Amino acid sequence: MSSTTQRTRTGDGEAAADTRERIVRAASRLLQRQGYEASGIKLIAREAGATLGSVYHFFPGGKQQLAVAAIRHGEEEFAEMLRTGLEGEADAASAVEAFCVELATALRESDWVDGCPVTTTALETLGRVPAIQEACVGALRRWQDVLADKLLGSGFGAEEADALASTVLSTLEGAETLSQVHRSEEPLRNAGRYLALLVRAAREA
Amino acid sequence: MSSTTQRTRTGDGEAAADTRERIVRAASRLLQRQGYEASGIKLIAREAGATLGSVYHFFPGGKQQLAVAAIRHGEEEFAEMLRTGLEGEADAASAVEAFCVELATALRESDWVDGCPVTTTALETLGRVPAIQEACVGALRRWQDVLADKLLGSGFGAEEADALASTVLSTLEGAETLSQVHRSEEPLRNAGRYLALLVRAAREA
Repeated sequence: MSSTTQRTRTGDGEAAADTRERIVRAASRLLQRQGYEASGIKLIAREAGATLGSVYHFFPGGKQQLAVAAIRHGEEEFAEMLRTGLEGEADAASAVEAFCVELATALRESDWVDGCPVTTTALETLGRVPAIQEACVGALRRWQDVLADKLLGSGFGAEEADALASTVLSTLEGAETLSQVHRSEEPLRNAGRYLALLVRAAREA
Repeated sequence: MSSTTQRTRTGDGEAAADTRERIVRAASRLLQRQGYEASGIKLIAREAGATLGSVYHFFPGGKQQLAVAAIRHGEEEFAEMLRTGLEGEADAASAVEAFCVELATALRESDWVDGCPVTTTALETLGRVPAIQEACVGALRRWQDVLADKLLGSGFGAEEADALASTVLSTLEGAETLSQVHRSEEPLRNAGRYLALLVRAAREA
């Protein structure tokens, strides 16, 4: 094999990886903005600037397989946002409050559409599409672990950190929905204030 | 008009009201279980045991108009469940905790499908169907008011009762989603325990 052929093949591999990545990103954004049912595979291809043939090349299992990849992409993206966001304040109570403000700002800047990349799809496919439900379980579990890690570093024991992280995640998810429906930062800002109070009260309890 | 005719007309009116009610209930259940996009008007008619003609007779505006009626039905149903549930305990903190356990049990008994009658549809139609979004705003506002009333009766001022009710509602919504996805009562039971702690801490703050 000549080095020219090798370079070309590597180049093709990179282009293919780029196309796959573009398709997954477009799918993730559509699931986040309008859910699973309204996001047809043709629409995803169009948003990704890809052909339908290339979508099926990378995802022979079609929309379900692509949705699983999209949920995992959303999992990574939000885990990173959450981890970085929580690093801004040493104390978990202040960190959670600051993160709620960050979420509220980002949500407003997206005109209230870039909410949780998982919730809509999770609720639409509950008990009907096991592979998607499994991916959603993984994403929620991952985010809860990021929150639990922050609580562990702020004086909580492992069991309490996990239980409290579950409630903090529930509140973030619900407040995001309320902010989106009301088109207002207030539900997320209220949630931040009260979650900080809760984390402090739980540490003293 | 003879009294026989009058009786018949009244009977027809009652039958019509029953049919309309059956259609709205079926639509509400479908929106709750699988959302707006997957709930076609033919499926709603079939679940209601009604003809497509009678669905369009009562809802000439089609699926959007029917969805608005269904969201309002879900609003009433959950407002009643919440009001009655919170009455079981005099203190707001204990009442919220007991209500979370009640929700967890009901959710498990429905095999995790009968979650919030509004969330899925609200997220699917965000910024795209103003009439539905308005109905969702109304439902969330109504439930928040029921929670705020309970807090008002437990020693909170009006402004704080409303803000705290917003966060309690956010937590209930999110914990319901987490319980549904994980097929576990734990997220709702954790939420109940921590919301009780939060309500007590906010009262003392």
